[in-house]
Amino acid sequence: MNSIIFLIDCPDRKGLVASISTFFYQRGFNILHCQQYTDVERNQYFMRLKLDMKSLKVSRKQLEEEFGLFGNEYQLRWSVHYSDYIQKVAILVTKAPHCLYDLLVRQQEGELPCEIPLIVSNRPALEHIADKFRIPFVCLPVTPEAKIKQEAELQTLLRQYRIDVLVMARYMQILSKEFVEEYSGRIINIHHAFLPAFQGASPYQQAYERGVKMIGATAHYATAELDDGPIIEQDVERVNHEQTIEELSRIGSDIERIVLARAVKAHLERRIIISGKRTIVFSTGV
Amino acid sequence: MNSIIFLIDCPDRKGLVASISTFFYQRGFNILHCQQYTDVERNQYFMRLKLDMKSLKVSRKQLEEEFGLFGNEYQLRWSVHYSDYIQKVAILVTKAPHCLYDLLVRQQEGELPCEIPLIVSNRPALEHIADKFRIPFVCLPVTPEAKIKQEAELQTLLRQYRIDVLVMARYMQILSKEFVEEYSGRIINIHHAFLPAFQGASPYQQAYERGVKMIGATAHYATAELDDGPIIEQDVERVNHEQTIEELSRIGSDIERIVLARAVKAHLERRIIISGKRTIVFSTGV
Amino acid sequence: MNSIIFLIDCPDRKGLVASISTFFYQRGFNILHCQQYTDVERNQYFMRLKLDMKSLKVSRKQLEEEFGLFGNEYQLRWSVHYSDYIQKVAILVTKAPHCLYDLLVRQQEGELPCEIPLIVSNRPALEHIADKFRIPFVCLPVTPEAKIKQEAELQTLLRQYRIDVLVMARYMQILSKEFVEEYSGRIINIHHAFLPAFQGASPYQQAYERGVKMIGATAHYATAELDDGPIIEQDVERVNHEQTIEELSRIGSDIERIVLARAVKAHLERRIIISGKRTIVFSTGV
Amino acid sequence: MNSIIFLIDCPDRKGLVASISTFFYQRGFNILHCQQYTDVERNQYFMRLKLDMKSLKVSRKQLEEEFGLFGNEYQLRWSVHYSDYIQKVAILVTKAPHCLYDLLVRQQEGELPCEIPLIVSNRPALEHIADKFRIPFVCLPVTPEAKIKQEAELQTLLRQYRIDVLVMARYMQILSKEFVEEYSGRIINIHHAFLPAFQGASPYQQAYERGVKMIGATAHYATAELDDGPIIEQDVERVNHEQTIEELSRIGSDIERIVLARAVKAHLERRIIISGKRTIVFSTGV
Repeated sequence: MNSIIFLIDCPDRKGLVASISTFFYQRGFNILHCQQYTDVERNQYFMRLKLDMKSLKVSRKQLEEEFGLFGNEYQLRWSVHYSDYIQKVAILVTKAPHCLYDLLVRQQEGELPCEIPLIVSNRPALEHIADKFRIPFVCLPVTPEAKIKQEAELQTLLRQYRIDVLVMARYMQILSKEFVEEYSGRIINIHHAFLPAFQGASPYQQAYERGVKMIGATAHYATAELDDGPIIEQDVERVNHEQTIEELSRIGSDIERIVLARAVKAHLERRIIISGKRTIVFSTGV
Repeated sequence: MNSIIFLIDCPDRKGLVASISTFFYQRGFNILHCQQYTDVERNQYFMRLKLDMKSLKVSRKQLEEEFGLFGNEYQLRWSVHYSDYIQKVAILVTKAPHCLYDLLVRQQEGELPCEIPLIVSNRPALEHIADKFRIPFVCLPVTPEAKIKQEAELQTLLRQYRIDVLVMARYMQILSKEFVEEYSGRIINIHHAFLPAFQGASPYQQAYERGVKMIGATAHYATAELDDGPIIEQDVERVNHEQTIEELSRIGSDIERIVLARAVKAHLERRIIISGKRTIVFSTGV
Repeated sequence: MNSIIFLIDCPDRKGLVASISTFFYQRGFNILHCQQYTDVERNQYFMRLKLDMKSLKVSRKQLEEEFGLFGNEYQLRWSVHYSDYIQKVAILVTKAPHCLYDLLVRQQEGELPCEIPLIVSNRPALEHIADKFRIPFVCLPVTPEAKIKQEAELQTLLRQYRIDVLVMARYMQILSKEFVEEYSGRIINIHHAFLPAFQGASPYQQAYERGVKMIGATAHYATAELDDGPIIEQDVERVNHEQTIEELSRIGSDIERIVLARAVKAHLERRIIISGKRTIVFSTGV
Repeated sequence: MNSIIFLIDCPDRKGLVASISTFFYQRGFNILHCQQYTDVERNQYFMRLKLDMKSLKVSRKQLEEEFGLFGNEYQLRWSVHYSDYIQKVAILVTKAPHCLYDLLVRQQEGELPCEIPLIVSNRPALEHIADKFRIPFVCLPVTPEAKIKQEAELQTLLRQYRIDVLVMARYMQILSKEFVEEYSGRIINIHHAFLPAFQGASPYQQAYERGVKMIGATAHYATAELDDGPIIEQDVERVNHEQTIEELSRIGSDIERIVLARAVKAHLERRIIISGKRTIVFSTGV
């Protein structure tokens, strides 16, 4: 069943639910799902509205114009998404195969509403996986001197393939501030630690040395600050003194792929609103 | 901040959110929180609406009459709750102290919005705990012959103390069908297993013998069928071959008290709608 | 580093650790890891001993004969395993791809110490996955009339490929009592529920209807009794009223593949001793 | 059943298990439980040995002398503990009642093998809890000027009550370096965050602002570096954008008390060996 999703946020005030729901009721829309949240501290209201696309009687352009006019009155910040538009996801990888495999299998099994037309890597190691799934694999090696050139090539590829979302599936390179800002809110990274613990390099070694009793992973939107973007999803697993760094890394890889898959799915299903350094992630629901 | 909570369910139809929110908007209400859920399979709509009590301009009776008239049109099943009414909870116990202690401490610390004016037991073992918290403790021993008489005495006590909710905190007696039905939807029981596994007696022994790798606990509304009422909350903990039955029981006691406390809290905060054998439990939120 | 693993169990008595460790010390063995457990209730002692294979000074046959003589005195039940023998695993599937993909990827990445030379299915649906990993895929359709013949063909295949371990990765057929007993302790099944809850067919539907707040999966050794064999591993995930049966099934598939992978890994690493209906599963360790 | 527990660590070498177990076998000891761990990276061996006290044929002094001589040969670092010695625990608190209640109830129910003869606080707020359990409560207010004097008074109390273990159950004061070192390995602190994330003050506010999706608690041995001592136990709970700082704090309080109780229990049961910044925590077992 096709649907239209509105993501809305605005300063909270009386009558918002009534006004918004009446706007859509008057236009004959069937509301499939309505999720809300009020950040009391900042007096900010957030809504995710899922409408039956079959109820759409006018053009998409007209709907958007009418809602835009309506929204001005309430200072709404909003976006609209049509489920018949299939988002295009590019995956960036380096050497670790587990997240890449996981995303490809989930996409193939229909769990992720997207296409994956492009895999980019700074190394050739994972080409065989791309081949298995018959997806173009482009190797763009990164050298300190050619970093700007490599990013330009990456950008060209992303435009060429009309990529909507970038997933850094254990891509061991840092993207430039300019690049990240251009794709603001559309780059999802997986960090192999329970942020903000163990930022930066070798988090499993850090975890081992600190003797923690649980290890975790964090999926977040990439920002110019390394490992500091809005967190989408986290999870952990219990460990003990017996695990070596290698075992922590292996246990962690299972957490990483689950956490990354949940984050990518939430993003593709338009269930996330970014609010400063925090994310509102609406539950799956209908 | 005092609030009014409406719990609503009805057959789903177009315009419900708009109609209900407009009803309250027209009467000047500030909606503090609005949570919804649609059971697509049964085409049933559920809503929890939290209103700022300060916006109430008419008498409670008048509000209820007006909403009753409004609701008839939509076949609403609804109930309304005012946060300035403090619910009275009676706790039923036998020998195990952990759930009793837990509920008393949480109530004392302001975590549970209720009074606990009465503890009833079929044994004298836990009187010292009631004494510590200066709560009346009544021992009503149960014998096969005097079961009906004991239940009658219990009922008298519950009326005398105007009890709203009964919590069976490891009460090792089965209440009669008649009794349970009179307090339908208001008796919360904790079962020391992950239902529907290990119903009935000695669940930890059953779990040990079956060699399960996790043990759990289940809080549910009591119904005439033993351990078969609508589940409110469950949780589990990992165990392994090393734990003896005694250790399973000890580990389990921590799960029991957490699960029971969450269920009682959800009930007292009017976050639960029972729907057949299932419960809709709205998240805490504001 | 190659190793020799002894799995031992016997009636508990004084001096067991000293005797066994002295047996190996006198023969110049370096003990890499020694794990023990005493079932106090049944007075049974269990040990997993991992020795450095480089310390082996005699032939494997002689070691086994000497240990056999030693063991008679203590009524030891024991088995010995050499890490340079690569176990052969056959995977049985029907339509669900997630567990199959998961095992193949883990094997390829070196996480599972085994070969997977054979995939057998009663349906052709997953042949494309076998092709991706270049593994022989044999489709043996099952019909009520030809069930015995199909099992005979399966047995022939298992002998031909010298299969050590069978993994039922969502294989939706019941193996005969005779077949299961021939491969006793070497068939691992994944059941998509938290056993003993929801045995048999359609566990996610059962879970939905019972309104449970967590769903799970169970990996166990197959026995003649359906879903009743010794449990190796279980895990659960929190759900709520919002999830449809389809969503429970999707969430569950992530639990299934993790639980099955852990069980297969524990079996291949010789960390499991079956004791009646229970399993002793030693932790990963070195 | 009374028992003798040896905690041992030493450089790893061949024959350790055989030598140690033979030492005790020759003296007629029944080994109830033997747990081992080898830190391969540092070539260090760790053992926890639990012996039946009924097998002790000589004086404790003689046993210790003999084992001391034996241990010199292997450079053993060791300690011995007799279960008939009841450890004395003092609890330090400030205002938060949940951990205090939790420890007192567990001790009363026989879950913690210790006495709790003393509660010390820098504020009078929790005296009523001490009264309920009839335990001496001493209020030692801390002022910047009188900090040294207050610590001296605390030390006098600890000596007077012959305290073995100090538990900082949300004690909001920093102990001096000298004090901490005197009680090295015997002060257990609970930090209300998943260390090393959110060290220092107001961790729940920090967690809220960072938008984490799980919050946690950490029990660790206090060292001169704040929140940096060897971690004993950690746990987490899932949260989402809906929780306010107050709710994070309430959810966290349940994690804190469970985590602290597990850590205190492990310490009292002599299941912990400190190794640099890491702890070896042996599982419960028999």
